[in-house]
Amino acid sequence: MLKDQVFVKKEEKSELNEQIKDLKAELMAQQQKLRDAKVPVLVLVEGWAAAGKGTLIKELISEIDPRFYQVVSPQIQSEKAMRYPFLYPYFTAIPENGKLVFLDSGWMEDVVRKTMNREITREESDRRIRQVNEMERQLRDGGYVLIKLFLHIEKKEQRDRLIALKEERDTEWRVTEEDLWQHREYKRFREAYDHFMDATDSLVPWHVLDGSNRKTSVRDALRLLVEGINGVLTGGRYVGDPFVEDFPLLPMPRLAEVDLTPTIEEEEYKSELKKLQKRLSELHNEVYRRKIPVVICYEGWDAAGKGGNIRRVAYPLDPRGVDVMPIASPEPHELNRQYLWRFWKRLPRTGHVCIFDRTWYGRVMVERLEGFCSEKDWKRAFNEINEFERQLTDWGAVVIKFWIHIDQDTQLARFTDRQNTPEKQWKITDEDWRNREKWDQYEVAVDEMLQKTSTANAPWYIIESNDKKFARIRTLKIVVEALEKACKDQIEREIP
Amino acid sequence: MLKDQVFVKKEEKSELNEQIKDLKAELMAQQQKLRDAKVPVLVLVEGWAAAGKGTLIKELISEIDPRFYQVVSPQIQSEKAMRYPFLYPYFTAIPENGKLVFLDSGWMEDVVRKTMNREITREESDRRIRQVNEMERQLRDGGYVLIKLFLHIEKKEQRDRLIALKEERDTEWRVTEEDLWQHREYKRFREAYDHFMDATDSLVPWHVLDGSNRKTSVRDALRLLVEGINGVLTGGRYVGDPFVEDFPLLPMPRLAEVDLTPTIEEEEYKSELKKLQKRLSELHNEVYRRKIPVVICYEGWDAAGKGGNIRRVAYPLDPRGVDVMPIASPEPHELNRQYLWRFWKRLPRTGHVCIFDRTWYGRVMVERLEGFCSEKDWKRAFNEINEFERQLTDWGAVVIKFWIHIDQDTQLARFTDRQNTPEKQWKITDEDWRNREKWDQYEVAVDEMLQKTSTANAPWYIIESNDKKFARIRTLKIVVEALEKACKDQIEREIP
Repeated sequence: MLKDQVFVKKEEKSELNEQIKDLKAELMAQQQKLRDAKVPVLVLVEGWAAAGKGTLIKELISEIDPRFYQVVSPQIQSEKAMRYPFLYPYFTAIPENGKLVFLDSGWMEDVVRKTMNREITREESDRRIRQVNEMERQLRDGGYVLIKLFLHIEKKEQRDRLIALKEERDTEWRVTEEDLWQHREYKRFREAYDHFMDATDSLVPWHVLDGSNRKTSVRDALRLLVEGINGVLTGGRYVGDPFVEDFPLLPMPRLAEVDLTPTIEEEEYKSELKKLQKRLSELHNEVYRRKIPVVICYEGWDAAGKGGNIRRVAYPLDPRGVDVMPIASPEPHELNRQYLWRFWKRLPRTGHVCIFDRTWYGRVMVERLEGFCSEKDWKRAFNEINEFERQLTDWGAVVIKFWIHIDQDTQLARFTDRQNTPEKQWKITDEDWRNREKWDQYEVAVDEMLQKTSTANAPWYIIESNDKKFARIRTLKIVVEALEKACKDQIEREIP
Repeated sequence: MLKDQVFVKKEEKSELNEQIKDLKAELMAQQQKLRDAKVPVLVLVEGWAAAGKGTLIKELISEIDPRFYQVVSPQIQSEKAMRYPFLYPYFTAIPENGKLVFLDSGWMEDVVRKTMNREITREESDRRIRQVNEMERQLRDGGYVLIKLFLHIEKKEQRDRLIALKEERDTEWRVTEEDLWQHREYKRFREAYDHFMDATDSLVPWHVLDGSNRKTSVRDALRLLVEGINGVLTGGRYVGDPFVEDFPLLPMPRLAEVDLTPTIEEEEYKSELKKLQKRLSELHNEVYRRKIPVVICYEGWDAAGKGGNIRRVAYPLDPRGVDVMPIASPEPHELNRQYLWRFWKRLPRTGHVCIFDRTWYGRVMVERLEGFCSEKDWKRAFNEINEFERQLTDWGAVVIKFWIHIDQDTQLARFTDRQNTPEKQWKITDEDWRNREKWDQYEVAVDEMLQKTSTANAPWYIIESNDKKFARIRTLKIVVEALEKACKDQIEREIP
């Protein structure tokens, strides 16, 4: 895209000024409609060092009310310092409905720079390009207007600008070693940018702007922004159709087929619990030392025994390295973003364990059944979630998912017990009774979820929990085995 | 406190086990009442390296439902890496109403360690001790149950434990250079801990626990926790009385005395605007280079022209180094914490500019007048805000506060114009009309605010905005002067 890029030169200055003025006025008029239409806009501004990304953004926002936009400048952190998945700084920066976010450099610069300086392998680079395409599709399908700009300047122009910046004491700090390296390696960088843009152009297209001409680049960027917003204001917020990648899925039984009779004797329970908790405690140290992130997901019927099960798994872990994340109804700032955002925000750092008490699977259960999202939305979610979980395991995470399972009679007995025991009454609400009435619908949804999202990298385990103690021992065993395997795999990877 | 500390030894093990079991059961029963009473609990666990802080916390949380607590382990960052005020990691970690947070080391370790390794001067250390007392009082007065524990072990015991940790591959990484240094300097650390505890014991007392005896320390900590919670469950949530430190205040006129006639000619406006914005743009680079944080606060009457004023100040700034923070009604997770929390969360990093479009002063205006907080709450807020702002300027921030002022006739004219202009209608709501009816009450509240919170370090400026252009030039001038002064002051401080 960049090689032999020719821009129209010599436009009339007064005419350009006029166009910019008109476009800014139009953008100003759009902002309120954007808010009413609840459409979020993400503008990614990539480009060469010293190409003028900051100045361009300044012009784009100049007439927008500060309540409606935010400028985010993610720091590209070294792989060692960065304790989150590659997409983390970008996915967590997405705007709320009705608002704009301008990203001053983003996922492209991150991938290209790290590939160039060999912080990541070519293979990892390709993997990240795939993740970028996944994220862009997820955002587009979720109704985001995504505009991707690349501000281009030639090598000579870059040189002049770097020198000018270096000459002033108050701007010399802006020229980093990395910028100078990029300038020296201009040609190789151009090829790398081209490669990245070619590989990420088909879903959401790139726009290359002439960074050597401030006014035309501002005009062109404004026009793209105004047209992008107009498109959605007239055509309506986009809702993507289900897209299904051929993920290799593990066979799962239907819930109705699961044998819920297994129990455990008190003696055996106690000795197994002690043994497994001791082993888990040791493994937690090892996992921490090896910086393996661990994500444990709990879903299950009301009163299935999730809370007590989680407590038994969390207890042996060093509390400084584990977070239990209870997932309640989303707050407004969460509801106003793509549904996975609030889970991205809660991811553990490398070496830490995060236990989710309910998860992103709410999308294909309660949100599906209560109509909190459209049919297309929840149908898309199976694949989006598989992608999300693969992004986690690509990062090196262990992902384990438990469906804590009981039958209807057991649930009724436990509900009744909660109702009749004063200390337990807070655990039972009208909503629990209402959900119970929808058992059959939930069972259909859960079965579909288990069939469509149990992958080798992030498998589901159905845990028989009519006997809570049996269930606890089973989850502990699965966690212990998964962590042992993760440690062993890491050693094997170290010696190729 | 620590020197010659004698603990009762040799308690019956079976009795201890019994007590721990009972206390855990009591804590379990309390959690729901705590939630109903909406009381937040912050437990600070300090102590020697290898004293067993993690293990203690593990026991304290073992029977608490994961939905109700969080364990936070703040990383003590070097002064250079830490781009926020000293209290930032602690104030941002406070629990929501009805929940518990356990801090594994906190402000005490931070101050003591940095004083010991001379990252901060003795003077700065004293300043931070004062800030700690301010924070603890603010939290206590805001209804927080604050429990401060110190886990104590003797030097010999520490040595044995460090050796044991070093012996195992999976735990040796836990022993840091800093831990070994602490061990070598045990006596000096003990004196420093003692000094800190003596200086922070009078508002919220310290409790020293016997770290050499796991069971008694767990029992004692559980007892303190249970008793602390019981106190507030029986006595009710604490609401502090107004506390007034003698801050040196700047004289401020009453709003009614302000002459609102000043205007500016179009020609002069244009040339001044250009000149001041150019200067501000240069200063932003300098401020960034010098790592000076800047906090600019906007308050004012509806339709006074805040938005346009903010745009003129923000426009010349590099968008990568400025955030405009519109403050709307708090969301649930914000309402459920001390009112300053959501502003702590939004502070700029060093070198960055943050413009608040409405601020923490909502406490003494809308929250006061609409009854969103008690009389004691807003009366306390004047002093709490003065403390907060001093904490910011102690950190090195420039704090500037604007009251954008108009008279009632001007407001009416602008409201009417908004009502009659389609593109502007979104700017006018029923609430604006309702607030207008309360002009006199607001004027009383604003006058009191201006009188009580205009300090030399964080002054208020009343900006005459009947002529919006006049107002913009005035705020720009004030910002430019304040930044010039801050840069100059920094140079002067560098050469004592």
